[in-house]
Amino acid sequence: MFKDIPVISLQRLPIYLNYLKSLPADRKYVSSGLIAEALGMGEVLVRKDLAFTSAVGRPRIGYVTVELIAALEDFLCCNTRSSAVIVGVGALGRAILGYGGFSNYGIEIDAAFDNDSSKVGVEIFGKPVYDIKDAKSKVADLGAELAVLCVPAQFAQEVADILIGCGIKAILNFAPVLIKAPENVVVRHIDVAANLAILSSMI
Amino acid sequence: MFKDIPVISLQRLPIYLNYLKSLPADRKYVSSGLIAEALGMGEVLVRKDLAFTSAVGRPRIGYVTVELIAALEDFLCCNTRSSAVIVGVGALGRAILGYGGFSNYGIEIDAAFDNDSSKVGVEIFGKPVYDIKDAKSKVADLGAELAVLCVPAQFAQEVADILIGCGIKAILNFAPVLIKAPENVVVRHIDVAANLAILSSMI
Repeated sequence: MFKDIPVISLQRLPIYLNYLKSLPADRKYVSSGLIAEALGMGEVLVRKDLAFTSAVGRPRIGYVTVELIAALEDFLCCNTRSSAVIVGVGALGRAILGYGGFSNYGIEIDAAFDNDSSKVGVEIFGKPVYDIKDAKSKVADLGAELAVLCVPAQFAQEVADILIGCGIKAILNFAPVLIKAPENVVVRHIDVAANLAILSSMI
Repeated sequence: MFKDIPVISLQRLPIYLNYLKSLPADRKYVSSGLIAEALGMGEVLVRKDLAFTSAVGRPRIGYVTVELIAALEDFLCCNTRSSAVIVGVGALGRAILGYGGFSNYGIEIDAAFDNDSSKVGVEIFGKPVYDIKDAKSKVADLGAELAVLCVPAQFAQEVADILIGCGIKAILNFAPVLIKAPENVVVRHIDVAANLAILSSMI
């Protein structure tokens, strides 16, 4: 589904959603000013971001909280089940397999892949670990379009190419290396060490 | 150290650095155009970002590769040793303890903290796990200013407050909740599930 929203705005939508969900249940209305203040952002920016969703704010009242939550969830496809797979069940892959927060966004980690035969065939946190050689049929069976890449840097591109060949449309890459992908495949890169280095530079 | 660079530019510097390090050793010069093309970015943007460092490009030649790498490493404090601690040694905390990539940026994960007595007192990947109650003295002993927060969402703010009280100046937060911190403390948030949801929305 193509949405005409800048990535920089899209990135903030889960932050708004998390904040709104943290509000007391009896808060019927919420204004862009309140959201902006709570999150340390500009009010105009908040209003512009939220305008990409179907939510409609009313002057001097703001948004109906449950409506705004629903609009954000709708925009982020939280109510549509998406199947994801993890590739590489080292320490990080295992940690992500055990992380329960994906279901809030309608995402289910359905399986993992590895090339280490000692890891293949077991279940981790109830999720099966398959041989990467069987990726094509398993990804097709699951209808998975999302993959989380937790393999060492030197294998990342090769594994990404395999996944793309299997029909994966989006890759979240934890390997500290840039992945090349065709235009119809989206890639996001989370480099934990680089993030810490950025913080260190900001002190 | 305060640097007059927008965070959005700062975030890209590790990407340039990783790319430059991936080049063959005999590539003596590298142009902003080449970097831009390899990373799928605009050339003007690349040149502007690199202008924040001490590197000087020459017309029609570009940058001396080793000089540009050195300038980026210098800017990102890769040659200054920074001590970091991890709080919460569940699956994710353990994975990060075992991740070797921090040393490229001059960062050493020196210790971990937890409040679970069964985890305290052991070593994980050679790093000691201390009781969070002892954080103040241990953080001071280590001279740590960086912390990676791997605790469940409901404890994240409480633990962040403890860390800030211990003199931590920068927090990398993996808990899916926003952390409030005073102005002199920088916080970056990595929400793995939200990142996957953003990808899912982009398909």
